[in-house]
Amino acid sequence: MTAERKFQTELENLKESLLKMAALVEETIRDAILALVNRDSELISKTMAKEDKINTMEIEIDEMCLKLLALRQPMAVDLRFITSAMKIITDLERMGDQAINICERAVSLNEEPQLKPYIDVPRMAEIVQSMVRDVLDAFVHQDSKLARSVCERDDIVDGLNDQVFRELLTFMISDPKTITRAVHLMIVSRCLERIADHATNVAEDVIFMVEARVIKHHADEKEEKEKA
Amino acid sequence: MTAERKFQTELENLKESLLKMAALVEETIRDAILALVNRDSELISKTMAKEDKINTMEIEIDEMCLKLLALRQPMAVDLRFITSAMKIITDLERMGDQAINICERAVSLNEEPQLKPYIDVPRMAEIVQSMVRDVLDAFVHQDSKLARSVCERDDIVDGLNDQVFRELLTFMISDPKTITRAVHLMIVSRCLERIADHATNVAEDVIFMVEARVIKHHADEKEEKEKA
Repeated sequence: MTAERKFQTELENLKESLLKMAALVEETIRDAILALVNRDSELISKTMAKEDKINTMEIEIDEMCLKLLALRQPMAVDLRFITSAMKIITDLERMGDQAINICERAVSLNEEPQLKPYIDVPRMAEIVQSMVRDVLDAFVHQDSKLARSVCERDDIVDGLNDQVFRELLTFMISDPKTITRAVHLMIVSRCLERIADHATNVAEDVIFMVEARVIKHHADEKEEKEKA
Repeated sequence: MTAERKFQTELENLKESLLKMAALVEETIRDAILALVNRDSELISKTMAKEDKINTMEIEIDEMCLKLLALRQPMAVDLRFITSAMKIITDLERMGDQAINICERAVSLNEEPQLKPYIDVPRMAEIVQSMVRDVLDAFVHQDSKLARSVCERDDIVDGLNDQVFRELLTFMISDPKTITRAVHLMIVSRCLERIADHATNVAEDVIFMVEARVIKHHADEKEEKEKA
């Protein structure tokens, strides 16, 4: 096999590993919410046990990237792909951390009667999962349009988070006995919002990589304003 | 100048830029808390205006790193230094975001009378600032001992955050009129805790870089257990 073909195979392996890690993180988020909604203590334990696997994958992929950088000395597009991969796995690992935080809150919430039927939180979780799935697809297929749709969904999640906060505040004010549970639920909602933020960070990296321009921090908007 | 000496100068420039960015982030955290404690609306606006500068620095340093990787094709220690720098600026930028979140909460808190004298929050902020300062020093001087001390301080911050949460819960339960303000303060406390988490992430990277072993996720503890 030529060095170039070997390098392409290694890049393919890297992509596959990233997708596997993303699938595991997505599954962890899904199960954390399922466990919360169904008050399923067994599923909470099972889900929390996934943290180790996610951490191991992060370390393995990081080493894979370092080896590629050192041995293949890639240029331009490939260089940006590999350095982006190194940032993305950090985000994925932190999304996993947030899912574990949700499990911890579920443990506390399960000790008391349910405050209210959960409606907005599962809705948020569904959108957040779609963001994680799509942003990794966008990364491996270099699809900046899909990445932009992920950024747009972040606003929906932020809106739902505000809605959950306001509703829970009303609960707390009308009945102080609900305060502890409401605070736990606020934190669950905030964890989902943080996962969406991580997905958005990755989406911005993808767009940067594909279009080689920085939409991060709305630098593009500023440029346009300056031009006008 | 030889290529090697030029490369060394570029690495020095990279270190200096990182330190400058860290100093700006540290200053932003300090001012956000000062503005909160002194209910100083002018300082809130001034501090929020720093977000743009932090974002610009992140983009500039990221490009600096990519150029170094592409043109100098560094090996081993230098390679790890540059890829770590790329991860660190992401953490620094997110610390800045958290400081801005604190400012936003300070705006809301200033609209109502002060809930209580702030004691634990400024204490947390002081520790968090020392973590940001020291972790960057640890990075540029490759000092894994200092990096470890940063990791240790994370536990103190977590403890203070729990303490603040419990105290605010007591306020909320005894007087529902305090709930909105208490929730804002809980979020301020959580923002500081998140900044400490980012500093700890960087510290783990530094230790990994220096000792070329992964203490992240306590992988070392596991190894030792397996050996025993």
